[in-house]
Amino acid sequence: MVKMLKVPEHQVAGHIARDGKLGPLVDDEGRFFKPLQGDARGENEAKFYESFSSNKTVPDHIHRYFPVYHGTELVEASDGSGKLPHMVLEDVVSGYSNPSIMDVKIGSRTWYPDVSEEYFKKCIKKDRATTTVSLGFRVSGFKIFDHQESSFWRPEKKVVLGYKVDGARLALRKFVSSNSLADSSSAPNCAFASDVYGGSNGILSQLLELKAWFETQTLYHFNSCSILMVYEDESILMKGKEDARAQVKLVDFAHVLDGNGVIDHNFLGGLCSFIKFIKDVLESSDNRDETDACGIENGK
Amino acid sequence: MVKMLKVPEHQVAGHIARDGKLGPLVDDEGRFFKPLQGDARGENEAKFYESFSSNKTVPDHIHRYFPVYHGTELVEASDGSGKLPHMVLEDVVSGYSNPSIMDVKIGSRTWYPDVSEEYFKKCIKKDRATTTVSLGFRVSGFKIFDHQESSFWRPEKKVVLGYKVDGARLALRKFVSSNSLADSSSAPNCAFASDVYGGSNGILSQLLELKAWFETQTLYHFNSCSILMVYEDESILMKGKEDARAQVKLVDFAHVLDGNGVIDHNFLGGLCSFIKFIKDVLESSDNRDETDACGIENGK
Repeated sequence: MVKMLKVPEHQVAGHIARDGKLGPLVDDEGRFFKPLQGDARGENEAKFYESFSSNKTVPDHIHRYFPVYHGTELVEASDGSGKLPHMVLEDVVSGYSNPSIMDVKIGSRTWYPDVSEEYFKKCIKKDRATTTVSLGFRVSGFKIFDHQESSFWRPEKKVVLGYKVDGARLALRKFVSSNSLADSSSAPNCAFASDVYGGSNGILSQLLELKAWFETQTLYHFNSCSILMVYEDESILMKGKEDARAQVKLVDFAHVLDGNGVIDHNFLGGLCSFIKFIKDVLESSDNRDETDACGIENGK
Repeated sequence: MVKMLKVPEHQVAGHIARDGKLGPLVDDEGRFFKPLQGDARGENEAKFYESFSSNKTVPDHIHRYFPVYHGTELVEASDGSGKLPHMVLEDVVSGYSNPSIMDVKIGSRTWYPDVSEEYFKKCIKKDRATTTVSLGFRVSGFKIFDHQESSFWRPEKKVVLGYKVDGARLALRKFVSSNSLADSSSAPNCAFASDVYGGSNGILSQLLELKAWFETQTLYHFNSCSILMVYEDESILMKGKEDARAQVKLVDFAHVLDGNGVIDHNFLGGLCSFIKFIKDVLESSDNRDETDACGIENGK
């Protein structure tokens, strides 16, 4: 039986299966097919998923931050090159109608000990040109569902990779705002900040759970790995808080290495910096709420 | 009145005032005189001390991890070049008879955004050659008082800077051991681990207090800064736990920059890695104590 695979609708970074290029595919049953690249990276990522998915020392509440792995399968590649081995993963946005998504690459470097000089030079140039060195993370891409326009708004890749500190901060505010998407003149209102970033099921509380694990885990070093943030903004507007379905997933494990008894201080440092940025958005939107509340009080 | 200044007895890293070279001096009243270097570094360090010592937003329990600053003073330089401006600091080992000391440079890089290419290249070469990149810290130097020999044991600088992961781990075990100093064939016994690293006043608990501050502070980025660990091992042997006088101090602020609203993820990541190493030493020595206790029980 031939599976009906298609190009994912909601990818915001990485190789994209378009115009006859090789990239990931999805089916209608919530599975994501990621081609094993020709070089060692694909093999390394599959090896990581094999190791991680069967690792009993990783607690269940941590396993849920990673896409479920269903092994590898030969499927028709998106570039028409015939059947190629693909990793079969959970499609983390399956079940969302109009997910807003952001991909944030964590760490203050994307290179690591023992890489080739060529790879080192390529990485460090990009790390210095983006916020990787200065912030310990860089936004790789995002898209936001604009419920007024009933369409997605997404900034150009070139613009995103050109962010400095203020650009990254603004993107994290914009990501949870209902206004000012295409319009850069008005300030993001952070209307969804408390529903998406805050609360006991929100992004911040998930990031803090990950942080606690990274403070002690010495199994893996997650070089060049991303945090994916997903939520459904339409459902917040329609049904209220419990439906934001805010979710954090770790993705991209082509450069994961054994930890060898050392914590992943590169990922952890960047994660702590990212957490501080999310907290800052939450705090400023809390203050805004209070100001609004005061305004209402005073207007009585 | 001419002050009687002398070369510090207990310096384990940095420029040393010996053989007519420029370096720090101490007096008999617990003060440490650090010459302002000719280039911007000295000025930058003095500027940091001025800013930090008067910063009321830094909590008191954090101020105590930094040497007290008494301003600058013109004193006779150690290299015979006449009077030079010196920062007047607290001599953190004043009052100790025979302090064991370790200097650990924190961070997975010693360079930072906007440095010259020359400085960047010099730093990254050393960061990759030492454990700075792999561990997020490197041991810069240490000395241990050997109470059997009544003298200090210290490894050569070249040896210390050549440590890999295992070397750094061994140094942190050796630092709190009463055996195997010059003898590399027997394993360090970690006899002082629980007195020095453990307990409510020990190194670990001080490091955790610093970590909590670094998770939120966005005032300063402590590039190329060191943690100094000091304790008095003789007094443990003579008087017991409360006299280890284990102390953590941050030193070397020539490359501190404004945080500009971003946490120091480089220092924090390295600090978390260092904390994990200290915890590992403590845990292995706890296990050893239990084994010993079992041995005694069984021998009854």
